[in-house]
Amino acid sequence: MKVSRRSHVPPFAVMEILAAANARRAAGRDVLNLCAGEPSTGASDVVRERAIDLLRSGDLGYTEALGVPALREAIAGHYRRWYDVEVDPARIAVTTGSSGGFVLAFLAAFDVGDRVALARPGYPAYKNILAALGCEVVELDCGPETRYQPTVSQLMGAYYDGGLDGVLVASPANPTGTMIAPAELDAVARWCADHEVRLISDEIYHGIAYGGGESDVQQATAALYMDRGAVVVNSFSKYWAMTGWRLGWLVLPEELVAPVGALAGNVALSPPALAQHAGIAAFSTEGYAAAAANVERYATSRAALLERAHELGWEPVAPADGAFYLYGNIAATGLDSVTYCARLLEEADVAITPGTDFDGVAGHEWVRLSFAASPETVTRAADRIAAWQRTL
Amino acid sequence: MKVSRRSHVPPFAVMEILAAANARRAAGRDVLNLCAGEPSTGASDVVRERAIDLLRSGDLGYTEALGVPALREAIAGHYRRWYDVEVDPARIAVTTGSSGGFVLAFLAAFDVGDRVALARPGYPAYKNILAALGCEVVELDCGPETRYQPTVSQLMGAYYDGGLDGVLVASPANPTGTMIAPAELDAVARWCADHEVRLISDEIYHGIAYGGGESDVQQATAALYMDRGAVVVNSFSKYWAMTGWRLGWLVLPEELVAPVGALAGNVALSPPALAQHAGIAAFSTEGYAAAAANVERYATSRAALLERAHELGWEPVAPADGAFYLYGNIAATGLDSVTYCARLLEEADVAITPGTDFDGVAGHEWVRLSFAASPETVTRAADRIAAWQRTL
Repeated sequence: MKVSRRSHVPPFAVMEILAAANARRAAGRDVLNLCAGEPSTGASDVVRERAIDLLRSGDLGYTEALGVPALREAIAGHYRRWYDVEVDPARIAVTTGSSGGFVLAFLAAFDVGDRVALARPGYPAYKNILAALGCEVVELDCGPETRYQPTVSQLMGAYYDGGLDGVLVASPANPTGTMIAPAELDAVARWCADHEVRLISDEIYHGIAYGGGESDVQQATAALYMDRGAVVVNSFSKYWAMTGWRLGWLVLPEELVAPVGALAGNVALSPPALAQHAGIAAFSTEGYAAAAANVERYATSRAALLERAHELGWEPVAPADGAFYLYGNIAATGLDSVTYCARLLEEADVAITPGTDFDGVAGHEWVRLSFAASPETVTRAADRIAAWQRTL
Repeated sequence: MKVSRRSHVPPFAVMEILAAANARRAAGRDVLNLCAGEPSTGASDVVRERAIDLLRSGDLGYTEALGVPALREAIAGHYRRWYDVEVDPARIAVTTGSSGGFVLAFLAAFDVGDRVALARPGYPAYKNILAALGCEVVELDCGPETRYQPTVSQLMGAYYDGGLDGVLVASPANPTGTMIAPAELDAVARWCADHEVRLISDEIYHGIAYGGGESDVQQATAALYMDRGAVVVNSFSKYWAMTGWRLGWLVLPEELVAPVGALAGNVALSPPALAQHAGIAAFSTEGYAAAAANVERYATSRAALLERAHELGWEPVAPADGAFYLYGNIAATGLDSVTYCARLLEEADVAITPGTDFDGVAGHEWVRLSFAASPETVTRAADRIAAWQRTL
């Protein structure tokens, strides 16, 4: 029987790497898996304890479609704390992970046939969700000269060449880890507002940045532009290491609050209740401290990797301003990235992700290593990669 | 800035009732809320204890997009136990509630512009999700003569009058509680297979039925037709009272397994990890026993309500074969159902749902009462409704 055209999502090359890695591990090999964009630590104790209390005594029924009021208020507090931005809790929609947030934001902002621009390389689910919802994706070819981030001039090009309804910006970005400068985000946001183009800002890696000191978390948020149409997508998965809890949020312009609420009630009913109630504890002193300790670990791993980028033979590497990825060019090896990753796993038991999953044009020259694993694992992996590279 | 056309979801009349009910409760009134399609008991102890164990020691990271293997196997065991149907666990997709299941099933089966038929009255989210995804909804006017369920002749009518790509059947249905006879489901499924029309069967109220004895759970499942294109949608929310956990599943035809997997990885990443691991315990002896005890309570409430249907002044009432709803006609009162519900709340502090949320044509003559609350609450509500009706 008929299968929809929109379900023909391109497969991820990493899935084959992961299957092979699991098979090797099952066969007793010491495989180092640096594919996953997932902190190895898991949720903090304060969040887990809150969840245990709730399981003993709490109501775990449906919540409000946009999330429990106390969590929406805690998120608003987070915007005051980190960004000095006042966000009305009514503008915050709690979602089922950032994935649920993207679906709701795209549905509320875009109709079938609308055109949405985003950077290439980029997180493939953006494209795939947009396509499933009937939107047209406009890929912007972003390179090192703009830190792999889109620019206003690219947006103007797309706007005058076919029209544009939306722009998705991610900072820190996946797979590059690069960040958009506050001035550039400002320029993009103003251009979008002037041209009635909806800006959607993926900020799920906020807080994981390596600028040093307080500036780590003083990243520019598109919440500054929520009154001019911008939508922020965020998540508890990365900074708070709560991946499997499926909890995220949106900051919405006034005109999207009711539409997102109506859609959420139908499409999702409510985000997971336990995660919402426990997630409030992520904003406690202990919750922030546990997250900051994780960032310290990533920083250690990142520094070790960058020191050895030349030895690894990856040149250039994208500037890993934030997130926990190193995106490196392996063209000098003469290997296609899919082959490179398959052989690296086969010959050195290190699993990383081919760039083809993030970039359909140049991705065969790039690979992504996630350093969200423990610093020891990352160091051992770097040793193996460097040794293996010398055998090529 | 532009808001999408597809986000213009019709508001639910029950939301105003709920807001008014909450306001009255906050003002100290003893409001009996029979709006929610939600068991009042919550998850069983065995599920909660499993979750507590996992929070102490378990990995709560992302899971496989289609769910953890042990849960998929447990669900397959459930099909052996209840229906004597062998379902390959590979055909089972764990989802983020049945809501997540509907989104995935609709995306995988239908393209923009596809036509999908469903019964009126019916659960409004079906229509609203389909419309958001760009599908065209074909409402079938279903009345008491077919237990408010669609028939093959209706499907043929829709098929020859504009074409048909899918049919959604719900049994036990919301809001009516009526069930489709196994022979009728068989006829619908065969007709769908013969005409390349995708059958989607909502079975989230399975196990909550009042036929007596073993037949309670021996409902016909469309899993019998999974090799001929049928999709089953189910959930842990109703029978296992795990609403806020956001856990459900699909049983898929072979051709939809890979598409749903690919879509799920992009649209949702994975269902909530804790709910999945703990949900395995729902299929234990204690898990089934706790669920069966809840059904006993609903049966007590239902019997009390049906005995008093005449006194309540609701005639006819839909045959409440299953689920936990009484859908009654209040036309004899001369009141529109929205007014009826507003006045019932204002004058007797009982909150129920106007039929307009389920039926845009005849819903002004109908109301839905949920008897998922405690039997005491339901009896007190029935007393108040009967007394209030006498004042009209």
